[in-house]
Amino acid sequence: MKIVILGGVAAGAKAAAKARRMLPDAVIDLYTDDTHISYSACGLPYYIQGNFSDYKTLLVRSPEEFEAQGVHIHLQSKAIKILVESNQVLIQDLQENRAYLVEYDQLVIATGARPIIPPIENVNLKNVFTVRHIEDGIAIREKALNSKHATIVGSGYIGMELLEAFVELGLNVTIVEFAPFVMSVFDEDISKLVQQQLMSVSDGRFEIMTSELVTELYSNKNGEVTGVKTGTGKEFNTDMVVICTGVRPNIEFARGAGIAIGETGAIKVNKHMRTNIQNIYACGDCAEKTLQIDGSKVWIPLGSTANKEGRVAAINLSGGDEDFDGVLGSAVVRCLSLTMSMTGYTEKKAKIAGFQPVSVTVTKYDRVGYMPDVNNITLKLIADKTTGLLLGGQAVGAGDADKRINTLTGALLGKLTVEEFTRNDLTYAPPFSPTIDPLLNAAQLLLEKIKKD
Amino acid sequence: MKIVILGGVAAGAKAAAKARRMLPDAVIDLYTDDTHISYSACGLPYYIQGNFSDYKTLLVRSPEEFEAQGVHIHLQSKAIKILVESNQVLIQDLQENRAYLVEYDQLVIATGARPIIPPIENVNLKNVFTVRHIEDGIAIREKALNSKHATIVGSGYIGMELLEAFVELGLNVTIVEFAPFVMSVFDEDISKLVQQQLMSVSDGRFEIMTSELVTELYSNKNGEVTGVKTGTGKEFNTDMVVICTGVRPNIEFARGAGIAIGETGAIKVNKHMRTNIQNIYACGDCAEKTLQIDGSKVWIPLGSTANKEGRVAAINLSGGDEDFDGVLGSAVVRCLSLTMSMTGYTEKKAKIAGFQPVSVTVTKYDRVGYMPDVNNITLKLIADKTTGLLLGGQAVGAGDADKRINTLTGALLGKLTVEEFTRNDLTYAPPFSPTIDPLLNAAQLLLEKIKKD
Repeated sequence: MKIVILGGVAAGAKAAAKARRMLPDAVIDLYTDDTHISYSACGLPYYIQGNFSDYKTLLVRSPEEFEAQGVHIHLQSKAIKILVESNQVLIQDLQENRAYLVEYDQLVIATGARPIIPPIENVNLKNVFTVRHIEDGIAIREKALNSKHATIVGSGYIGMELLEAFVELGLNVTIVEFAPFVMSVFDEDISKLVQQQLMSVSDGRFEIMTSELVTELYSNKNGEVTGVKTGTGKEFNTDMVVICTGVRPNIEFARGAGIAIGETGAIKVNKHMRTNIQNIYACGDCAEKTLQIDGSKVWIPLGSTANKEGRVAAINLSGGDEDFDGVLGSAVVRCLSLTMSMTGYTEKKAKIAGFQPVSVTVTKYDRVGYMPDVNNITLKLIADKTTGLLLGGQAVGAGDADKRINTLTGALLGKLTVEEFTRNDLTYAPPFSPTIDPLLNAAQLLLEKIKKD
Repeated sequence: MKIVILGGVAAGAKAAAKARRMLPDAVIDLYTDDTHISYSACGLPYYIQGNFSDYKTLLVRSPEEFEAQGVHIHLQSKAIKILVESNQVLIQDLQENRAYLVEYDQLVIATGARPIIPPIENVNLKNVFTVRHIEDGIAIREKALNSKHATIVGSGYIGMELLEAFVELGLNVTIVEFAPFVMSVFDEDISKLVQQQLMSVSDGRFEIMTSELVTELYSNKNGEVTGVKTGTGKEFNTDMVVICTGVRPNIEFARGAGIAIGETGAIKVNKHMRTNIQNIYACGDCAEKTLQIDGSKVWIPLGSTANKEGRVAAINLSGGDEDFDGVLGSAVVRCLSLTMSMTGYTEKKAKIAGFQPVSVTVTKYDRVGYMPDVNNITLKLIADKTTGLLLGGQAVGAGDADKRINTLTGALLGKLTVEEFTRNDLTYAPPFSPTIDPLLNAAQLLLEKIKKD
């Protein structure tokens, strides 16, 4: 059997390794336009920050290790067309600049996502970056070590992680965000709070411009970026610009091939990670996800999901039978002393999905008040008014927000109502929680609100 | 309506406050043999350690505050008999040394638990303590500040917290534990690991004697403890001894009154926290609990549970209708750099309860390996072989063990199988978790083990 895998960061590399173990006799070829495979892209901000000095720390498995196990790795080899009828893929060798056809019995599309580049004049200047590949991380760190000011365009997860990295490296930073507040993945009340809390620890080291676009970049005669112009006409100097205004599925090459694209714009897959074509699988950031809460389709590209999907795709194409059930949209990010974590529906998305969301927001200590390391967390809990079903939660603060969100995940998975969740028995000791955990406090208030309304 | 509440630490104080809010016209009297009410007994080790200097920090609500709301507080007033037929309680005034009768329409028993004192010769010497009341904490701290060596008899939650406190105060400590390993509330493999990990950070500051009893205490002519003799004939000098060999329900006064005692030795209650007598409620450490996993009866006395039960008892006696569903047995304790956390059944208790427990234990990083504050956690996950039902988990280590255990609670509450739990979508970012969380790793291995066996 001939297995071809397109893409090799998380899902592709995992699929290759798993397929190898399941089918010792199969011929496995992995093609990627990247110069590295099997790396933790999520670790790039921590490399940039200097938590470790060798970028190789980010590599999970080297091409040589794959080759030693008989998985053939083709770097800088980009898929440009899939020929579904003849089970072939047209690959372009980016180094030699020539195209060639490869054949497959089973195809795995794991080509991930690519950064969205907004329409900014002179966006191709030197020292204007995106954060996706190992080379990006290396170049950004090198430039940051020789810069005084950095501009971050966009303020999602990666923007937040880069803000921390740059501030820790001693740079001054300007964030330019199109939305009214940073981290617009949260509900607006929480995003607003995140922004306030960030600014309260800014200490003059960074500023945040919201409801603002970058329209133009200025350069010196060497073609290096030197300044930024915004939609409202503001201008400021900068030494480097990182664009993190989101990503989109990297699936252009698959269009027109007869592979169904879902309503979210990513490749449609079933629980086996199989596309509408029997012998073609998709997994990772290029594939659509199912939200476990109500079975709706979403596109939430995250590394942890990509790993799981790559594994499931490999098992099924190898003749096994394994489901990937979907996601809750659980995510967390740290920025300086602040943790921001969420799972399930936000209130705004729950409304769009047709629920009648009711929410409460509490701000509480994360442990008993007399403990030396006590901090606040703000916790928003959302449920459906009609059924009482828990829909999601968001938690931010200097305190342990992430524990509370992970505690919610099991309840969302078990489709518990708020009333059922108020009965949860959480651990308690003064260094870990107040006597009544903020989560149970919020659940109790939410229950009363639902009953009263 | 005349409401009498016996006991006033957690459950009793909570019941009094809640009943006050629900029944503004009721006469509420609270009797306790203690000299304080409404305090965080769980905070005593942190007062002893010196995390705060004023013991009043532990007080949630003062007698004066209660009195201002019309809740009459009777300190040093001990219940010695309940007369169920005539709706009366015989109270002994410990200061005046006289008894008197009080009448009730509704009675709440919240008399908690009291320390078990093992048969040790000369156990009543000066500087031999238990840890239950505010005075205990004050006396222990005062003595610890003027001591070089402390002996802790028993090594459960309180023993562990005291070990940390004494070590932080610069004392040398000897723990004497009857069981083969410390923290025998865990399965033996985990207890053994806890002990190894504790000893690895001991640095000569403490020693642990296991499978060992204290049989006798020695004293000087002032009646102060000066030494310890053990069952195997070991002798050592000490300046103070704290006995924390467990507690039992403080319900002697209720015996023979017709109030049903459960199989666990605590007062039997239904979901309304009502005893077998229509107008008598019991809540907190003196009351039996229901394990949410299978509805079996357990006695797990914890402050967080007491608070919830006090609230539910007050609502029901006030004419409301609220259930207390039970507990999972979730608990956590910190000792120096080590966190130990558990929820649900241990393997040994699951076996006794008639399950066919299967378990896996993994030791993994708690976050991505390149993060500066990465630490190990060891996680044991237990499920029933026949049904696949998740039964419980235990986590220990210098890493974030507590998050994983709380994440399990929602799954236990939702009665998820291991297979269902493998589908849980946990948050991921390098400062918070490896790409595949240890919990999902363990769940996957446990699923494979159940399927294979």
